[in-house]
Amino acid sequence: MNTSAEDVRDTAVRARTAAAALATLNRAAKDRALLAMAEALGARSAELIEANARDVEAARAAGTAEAMVDRLTLTPARLEAMAGGLRQVAGLDDPVGEVVRGRVLPNGLELRQVRVPLGVVGIIYEARPNVTVDAAGLCLKSGNAALLRGSASAVRSNTALVGVLRDAAQAAGLPADAIQLVPGVDHESVKHLMRLRGLVDVLIPRGGAGLIRAVVEESTVPVIETGAGNCHVYVDVDADLDQALAIILNAKTHRVSVCNSTETLLVHRAVADAFLPRALTALAEAGVTVHGDETVRAHDDRVVPATDDDWAAEYLSLDLAVRVVDSLDDAVTHIRRWGSGHTEAIVTRSLGASRRFVATCDSAAIMVNASTRFTDGERFGMGAEIGISTQKLHARGPMGLPELTSTTWVGIGDGHLVS
Amino acid sequence: MNTSAEDVRDTAVRARTAAAALATLNRAAKDRALLAMAEALGARSAELIEANARDVEAARAAGTAEAMVDRLTLTPARLEAMAGGLRQVAGLDDPVGEVVRGRVLPNGLELRQVRVPLGVVGIIYEARPNVTVDAAGLCLKSGNAALLRGSASAVRSNTALVGVLRDAAQAAGLPADAIQLVPGVDHESVKHLMRLRGLVDVLIPRGGAGLIRAVVEESTVPVIETGAGNCHVYVDVDADLDQALAIILNAKTHRVSVCNSTETLLVHRAVADAFLPRALTALAEAGVTVHGDETVRAHDDRVVPATDDDWAAEYLSLDLAVRVVDSLDDAVTHIRRWGSGHTEAIVTRSLGASRRFVATCDSAAIMVNASTRFTDGERFGMGAEIGISTQKLHARGPMGLPELTSTTWVGIGDGHLVS
Repeated sequence: MNTSAEDVRDTAVRARTAAAALATLNRAAKDRALLAMAEALGARSAELIEANARDVEAARAAGTAEAMVDRLTLTPARLEAMAGGLRQVAGLDDPVGEVVRGRVLPNGLELRQVRVPLGVVGIIYEARPNVTVDAAGLCLKSGNAALLRGSASAVRSNTALVGVLRDAAQAAGLPADAIQLVPGVDHESVKHLMRLRGLVDVLIPRGGAGLIRAVVEESTVPVIETGAGNCHVYVDVDADLDQALAIILNAKTHRVSVCNSTETLLVHRAVADAFLPRALTALAEAGVTVHGDETVRAHDDRVVPATDDDWAAEYLSLDLAVRVVDSLDDAVTHIRRWGSGHTEAIVTRSLGASRRFVATCDSAAIMVNASTRFTDGERFGMGAEIGISTQKLHARGPMGLPELTSTTWVGIGDGHLVS
Repeated sequence: MNTSAEDVRDTAVRARTAAAALATLNRAAKDRALLAMAEALGARSAELIEANARDVEAARAAGTAEAMVDRLTLTPARLEAMAGGLRQVAGLDDPVGEVVRGRVLPNGLELRQVRVPLGVVGIIYEARPNVTVDAAGLCLKSGNAALLRGSASAVRSNTALVGVLRDAAQAAGLPADAIQLVPGVDHESVKHLMRLRGLVDVLIPRGGAGLIRAVVEESTVPVIETGAGNCHVYVDVDADLDQALAIILNAKTHRVSVCNSTETLLVHRAVADAFLPRALTALAEAGVTVHGDETVRAHDDRVVPATDDDWAAEYLSLDLAVRVVDSLDDAVTHIRRWGSGHTEAIVTRSLGASRRFVATCDSAAIMVNASTRFTDGERFGMGAEIGISTQKLHARGPMGLPELTSTTWVGIGDGHLVS
């Protein structure tokens, strides 16, 4: 039976009520709840692992690939890592109440802009149950009620996890409805959620490009796009080629399944003969399949021909598209045409080239002589992140706690009138 | 003939190219263009007024109300005011390049978050041709290409204005396509614009609730809602009633057609007998029609019965809904139920009451002992504004130049790798 619009709406209404209560909590109350939630994940690990075992069993019965089954599986060590994440969030500054700007107007009105929670945050995600705990923790700390919509394959795990988190939050004096699963695992469930403008303040889809596109197309609730990463490394005419080699190997092979790994290497024609033979050999030794243009293929028989699909691809595998370009501007044109606006890197010793690349690449992060892999909330020193925004509105790049807030202008007067 | 999707798309593609050029301009170049545009409005006022006269004539022939015809009409003085607006924008700080945050990571990577233009900003608005000039100026200063879609009734005026602005911008060395009218005045024209996600970075509808709702429903381009203002004044049990009277008169009658005027007065029951007779008399003397609940009506025969439509109404006229509430919390509940999230005011001498009202009203601006009319970019000292956002994402409250930007993270290293 399809999930009903009423069930989803009722969940959101409860979340909205909980959000109003959360908004007035001080940091101590929120941190107490986060620590209680961390504690409960350990104390109730047996029931969590049992619920998860049924998801794992169903996934295996459905013939799910072992890598996916592994992502789904909970172990005591993984539960402890999730608990550690909650403790870390408890240690982060509370963004709520921060005064962003403030002044006294000429007429004496005291004006300040302060951070406030967004309200109700909906998160739509795939497979990994750790997102359930991470997202609940970040939303709670930033004063937001979380509406969590995980994948069908993890529904038993997520239901058990949310049950444990709610119990702990409630025992710590918070409204249990601050953390809720969206009812249903069918498409209708997401569809109803996307129409709750006014009840849900923002939707954050975390997952593949198809999911994100569907949400963007259909949602009337404001959406923050995250995670699509077609990142580039550009080796400039003035590059230190040793650095360039180290950076492309790091950016491509350090961890292939993440959004900040590099998918395309662009090489200035003037250094192609010096750089490509070394790079192609090193990449082949690292197990990377190179998809190259004609110039690249002329250097190495192992290179397979690249098509437009390769320039557009977010491989998330040991594949790399490689193209030779005539200039920095051509590299930027390629990036603007094919990139996803996540992270681009330039390798150059030229200050002018680095300035031009930074000024003209239109992406969430630009690295100069550094690996694209640095774009990450924890590496940026923001603490945990809820995702990496690749859109320009509201938040761009890694989203930590302040990015889960809005602001309110507060004016304090003594009978002030406009004249 | 309906406007074709290709025509609108081509316009946006040109805007995107222009935006890439605008993004790298320094402040001096942008200010020169703004001053040249201001100059041109005066120098070419005759042709602008002639084009406008044809809009005015058509409006009169169509039986348009005289107040609307007046809003549409250009005069030398009004053109000079628009030019003054452009000069004022030239005098404002350039938000582009501002370093929002920055630090050196433990590994030595220099990290900073800098403001960058959004890119292509679409503005959909009604009647008044001054919005054409204001929006073009604010977009240009913040490094954004403007796609302007005014109303059919002002199309001759807008075409002439945009022609003058483009010529002046181009003569000052900027790409003319930084400022464009969206082709067509039919609904198809807006519809195509709303589907250009990836080409248009944000749409800002400025106008009535119907327009805004339609854009929110249909747009895949991110939208910033502006301008719906159902503002409240709450007179607390601890109010200074003289202040309360002055504030409600100011908030209701100072200028009725603007979004920050007050539409509903909420009065604590404990002060209703002391406050309402004075307030209702003063409001009646000011020409205000009061729509009240039963308690209010018992005080004055002139009060007409209020229905739910009155609590929801953005009158923009000399009408005011008045309700007696049992507590501050009931006032907040009413505001959260019926308000538009724009501006709410409390009149109270109690610090505790003001703190609670500020913490629990979920609106873009909260005034304590001050008129709701203060919520305005110029009054807040932000310079000109492009609108007042009533949504929580990206920008909330008056939107000036920084609110027309996004950010990019820039990391500068020397061969930095992730380990």
